[in-house]
Amino acid sequence: MFLTVEGGEGAGKSTLIRLLAEALKARGLTCLCTREPGGCPLGLQIRPLLLQRAQTMNNRAELLLFLADRAQHVAEVIRPALERGEWVLCDRYSDSTIAYQGCGRGMDKDALQRLNDWASGGLWPDLTLLLDLPAEEGLARARARNGLTHREESEGRFESEALAFHQRIRQGFLERAARWPERFCILDARRSPEAVLCEALAAIDRLHG
Amino acid sequence: MFLTVEGGEGAGKSTLIRLLAEALKARGLTCLCTREPGGCPLGLQIRPLLLQRAQTMNNRAELLLFLADRAQHVAEVIRPALERGEWVLCDRYSDSTIAYQGCGRGMDKDALQRLNDWASGGLWPDLTLLLDLPAEEGLARARARNGLTHREESEGRFESEALAFHQRIRQGFLERAARWPERFCILDARRSPEAVLCEALAAIDRLHG
Repeated sequence: MFLTVEGGEGAGKSTLIRLLAEALKARGLTCLCTREPGGCPLGLQIRPLLLQRAQTMNNRAELLLFLADRAQHVAEVIRPALERGEWVLCDRYSDSTIAYQGCGRGMDKDALQRLNDWASGGLWPDLTLLLDLPAEEGLARARARNGLTHREESEGRFESEALAFHQRIRQGFLERAARWPERFCILDARRSPEAVLCEALAAIDRLHG
Repeated sequence: MFLTVEGGEGAGKSTLIRLLAEALKARGLTCLCTREPGGCPLGLQIRPLLLQRAQTMNNRAELLLFLADRAQHVAEVIRPALERGEWVLCDRYSDSTIAYQGCGRGMDKDALQRLNDWASGGLWPDLTLLLDLPAEEGLARARARNGLTHREESEGRFESEALAFHQRIRQGFLERAARWPERFCILDARRSPEAVLCEALAAIDRLHG
């Protein structure tokens, strides 16, 4: 079972992944929690190029770096885990690419889909949990978190984009969820982490049970 | 005028670029000497990922990193210089991608050509100087150089590939030169640097004079 968690900045993706992994492990399942960018040794070196505020790059270079990270991550981490029969929980994956680079940056979405399929070898998740909330609220959360952890200095490149950029991304995720309702489960990210977890587990049980 | 210098390991590309730039500057031309990977600030950070011996990646991730470097390099360095009317001399470019990843790694060459055109925005050189010599000789030169400079520890990933890999690359370059004889000039890299320079300048004069 390949499960991805998607959403804008500050939506609570990493919290949900942590709680989900605990709940699934309590059921006796083996879970691998990973993320993009940075889910493999090569990706860990690509991640600062993509997320540090000081980096300058054009849209194509940005996309190609995300895809390089994904190509290696899928081949080295995700596919082997799925072949061992494990559950894979991934914080961001291909839907982020289409939402951020397609809707956020305005790149051609069909071209992105083709390039992404090539890089990932056509691997799509069985279930995508979309944490949805207004862009303003997510950004406020992300900025508060960064203020606390000083992560902002090192990883704020996307968060520093304009509000309209993040609003387009939210719409992009929602459009994708509407297009593939079987694969997507939209979760209201304004609710408590425990309430979101319950809804997520219910969606997993509908698919898997 | 956009001029690229191509060839296998140890063919003498950087020496030729240096001598060419001196000769063109002596004629009063403004030359920008650059290289791939690593011709822009982002590329300088991508370069060690691609060349360090200890890096592990699959063919797709490798290709995507080269293309990310190229996308940024073209947009930030090469096109602006050409628009300012400068001559650009580039150590490796798209032909290396097709020769190394296509012929060396065995990836689909038509797909590579399309991906490369997308990343580079369709920019091809006006003239490509191909430094040709038997793969054994080039590798021996490269390894001797690395022994002297201790560069091997940091940049030997391609040089450490098998001889057959480098022989396929040589053939790949020669096939490309045969397919685009107008753009390519094949130079015998076993001759002295000065003799190679004279031939290169003659090729430039044929095209430009």
